[in-house]
Amino acid sequence: MSELDLPRWATELLRDTRTAHLATADSGGRPLVVAICYVFDGELLYSAIDAKPKTTRWLRRVRNIDENPRVSLIVDHWDEDWTRLCHVIVGGEATLVEGGHEWHRAIEALQGKYEQYRAMSAESDFGCVIRIEPRTVRCWRADNA
Amino acid sequence: MSELDLPRWATELLRDTRTAHLATADSGGRPLVVAICYVFDGELLYSAIDAKPKTTRWLRRVRNIDENPRVSLIVDHWDEDWTRLCHVIVGGEATLVEGGHEWHRAIEALQGKYEQYRAMSAESDFGCVIRIEPRTVRCWRADNA
Repeated sequence: MSELDLPRWATELLRDTRTAHLATADSGGRPLVVAICYVFDGELLYSAIDAKPKTTRWLRRVRNIDENPRVSLIVDHWDEDWTRLCHVIVGGEATLVEGGHEWHRAIEALQGKYEQYRAMSAESDFGCVIRIEPRTVRCWRADNA
Repeated sequence: MSELDLPRWATELLRDTRTAHLATADSGGRPLVVAICYVFDGELLYSAIDAKPKTTRWLRRVRNIDENPRVSLIVDHWDEDWTRLCHVIVGGEATLVEGGHEWHRAIEALQGKYEQYRAMSAESDFGCVIRIEPRTVRCWRADNA
């Protein structure tokens, strides 16, 4: 999929929000939702496992993607004024990226977005990167409904 | 499961947080994550579909639960200071409650937590209620890790 054709507010929400929620499911269909840091480059989403590389293969989200690449990701804005609620839900295919140019580029992009990652060493503090290729995108704003 | 045996901070996070994220998956294992309002009574979690009752059976989260009752729910606290991050992830079994005493009790509890629901009529503005019975609970705090 090339550059996603989204309304501007949705592109900005995907690009600027600090945390997303990612759902994976194992091969038996048991879902798991986690909160993630991520980066959106206009086309793909990336999230890194910030843990010792050796241990990341045991994380349930990683094992789930290994078994079943289909994922769902939401970026949403909460507000007590419910006319300001909005979200973007991405359905996609996830791939585990464990090194090479794309891995380095993703870590750099994440370090660009999150100051907290800049103190960390790409080589020793990150495990695999999850790449998400959007297949479906659903944008919703309460004031537009 | 009777009253959950959780650390106090986790019970408070589950009780007081305004929004949770719920992952369901269809019978083929395709996950979906949505943002929800919910209430936790110390034992069970409830979330309502605030839409015309006739249309709620078509919502993907409802169809997914009908096909596959296993769900995952997260309540988390985001902070730019990552030593303050924390979350509670509940793995559970979901049931659709479409009326009766439990449905009314859940709507009342939701109206107790959310002022925004109080302007709505239980009978005409809510569809089914999703009841989640926790089977596994994982509590995590960065400053405890």
